[in-house]
Amino acid sequence: MKYFITGCAGFIGSNLTDRLLQQGHEVVGFDNFSTGLAEFLTTAKQSPHFTLITGDLLDKELVEKSMRSCNAVMHLAANADVRFGTHHPHKDLEQNTIATFHVLEAMRANHIQRIAFASTGSIYGEATIIPTPEEAPFPVQTSLYGASKLAAEGLIQAYCEGFNFQAYIFRFVSILGERYTHGHVFDFYKQILNDPNKLYVLGNGKQRKSYLYIQDCLDAILWAMEKVHNKVNIFNLGTDEYCEVNHSINWICQHLGVAPEKTYEGSERGWIGDNPFIFLDCSNIRKLGWTPKYRIQQGIIRTVDFLRNNHWILER
Amino acid sequence: MKYFITGCAGFIGSNLTDRLLQQGHEVVGFDNFSTGLAEFLTTAKQSPHFTLITGDLLDKELVEKSMRSCNAVMHLAANADVRFGTHHPHKDLEQNTIATFHVLEAMRANHIQRIAFASTGSIYGEATIIPTPEEAPFPVQTSLYGASKLAAEGLIQAYCEGFNFQAYIFRFVSILGERYTHGHVFDFYKQILNDPNKLYVLGNGKQRKSYLYIQDCLDAILWAMEKVHNKVNIFNLGTDEYCEVNHSINWICQHLGVAPEKTYEGSERGWIGDNPFIFLDCSNIRKLGWTPKYRIQQGIIRTVDFLRNNHWILER
Repeated sequence: MKYFITGCAGFIGSNLTDRLLQQGHEVVGFDNFSTGLAEFLTTAKQSPHFTLITGDLLDKELVEKSMRSCNAVMHLAANADVRFGTHHPHKDLEQNTIATFHVLEAMRANHIQRIAFASTGSIYGEATIIPTPEEAPFPVQTSLYGASKLAAEGLIQAYCEGFNFQAYIFRFVSILGERYTHGHVFDFYKQILNDPNKLYVLGNGKQRKSYLYIQDCLDAILWAMEKVHNKVNIFNLGTDEYCEVNHSINWICQHLGVAPEKTYEGSERGWIGDNPFIFLDCSNIRKLGWTPKYRIQQGIIRTVDFLRNNHWILER
Repeated sequence: MKYFITGCAGFIGSNLTDRLLQQGHEVVGFDNFSTGLAEFLTTAKQSPHFTLITGDLLDKELVEKSMRSCNAVMHLAANADVRFGTHHPHKDLEQNTIATFHVLEAMRANHIQRIAFASTGSIYGEATIIPTPEEAPFPVQTSLYGASKLAAEGLIQAYCEGFNFQAYIFRFVSILGERYTHGHVFDFYKQILNDPNKLYVLGNGKQRKSYLYIQDCLDAILWAMEKVHNKVNIFNLGTDEYCEVNHSINWICQHLGVAPEKTYEGSERGWIGDNPFIFLDCSNIRKLGWTPKYRIQQGIIRTVDFLRNNHWILER
């Protein structure tokens, strides 16, 4: 198979690129390096089966040209900067919604009909049912990020109906692990490195979140694509547990042997549009036989170890 | 109040413009006349409280400038051409999603925080619960039109959370009545006018749809905006009944005194992405005390009468 991977230099994209190359597939990777890192492609670049294209998904012609002769698209590129959506509302629309439209149009031009899409649990807004199943009541969006991903999902689904595409839509919790470059573990580790005695926490520390380890995430994506073949296949991806931000802080501090004094910003939400409780019902993907191998605590420890061994990432 | 109405020369927009002017409000109307008709603004133009701006919502600067000093936005402009979405996928994205983004950004620039939005029952895709309530299970999109409206809804909701907007989102069934310019009654009337002995029907005629009369629709919009004041207010708008396309044909033919021979295209759906059964649960808006005054049959007859008295619309 020849895969087209958008966001190939990102956290999830680069790990997926490596995995697919290991499995013997060809990969055409596409990234604008706005947040992706060339260092994450060091292994991939050694493979004769990897082609890197540096470009932006807003460049519709380039996307179309780059996709030629691929069999399937793994669309992972996104503005994943959930927290600062209100600082620049156009960014989510452009990088998540319009970019997805260009991917779909390029697929259509190249007669490619199979797409996997990295969506998010954020599209459930502040869910009324927790753990939240895929067929939860029609949600109300609370973040520009969620709204832009919902828009992308809708487009993809409409292309399935209108142009006989087949889609795999994965609604992720936060992903952790090697090549993780932003989020609360990143922020806390960076703070502790600067001053092991102080830690500033957004929100009240009681926000409850679920996390999934990157390799478990990749297993699930590839497993689902192998096992089910409906027109539109939608799966929540997460673990069966959640933790409080405070638990996560304790695990990180314990692992690093530090005991900082914590200051809380105080509100229930870490930022505007932050969801104080994200926990997805993942029974649909589990019914297919997939099980995460790592618990949240293990994922967090592995992430800390990755950051500890890659300080260059903190210094960008 | 000074209202900014997008799509002011359209079917719903021009009727709403007239209504608000009658109530003594000021109206700034915005239309690109791609489907809107100058003739629909004949009454409005006689009012000193009406200002018409001819422009496209894709012209962000013009939208921002035009909205100055308005208090609320009634966002009705849309590519409502549901049937031909797959012929030009960019049109729904641009005219429905990106246009809505420009409206929201212009509101933000002008410190306007109140918006009413014409959404659609199409966003429920092929609903699993019928009649379909607002909190139906998270739907899968089946048309580019539905997807683009869903995207617009999501954006509006995210602006409510992120920028303290207040939104009234109305998910319409098809609307009928004076100034109706496209849809099945239009198509059938035009066919009968050309040849009263023949009628070609898309689908098998058994598609079940619900319709609402334009004045009932306007009553509901203004009623809801007066009665409820949540951050995000979402209402289905329709009647308590539905009809088969075949019933509608019979009413039209009876009213016109014709008996054409019918030919059916034959499939369950009239076109790709057509929903064979649209029927919304409107109990939420009815709980507020609104009731439609016209039944579907009456709405259809009034529409036929409007078309009969306005043949110029058929000849465009």
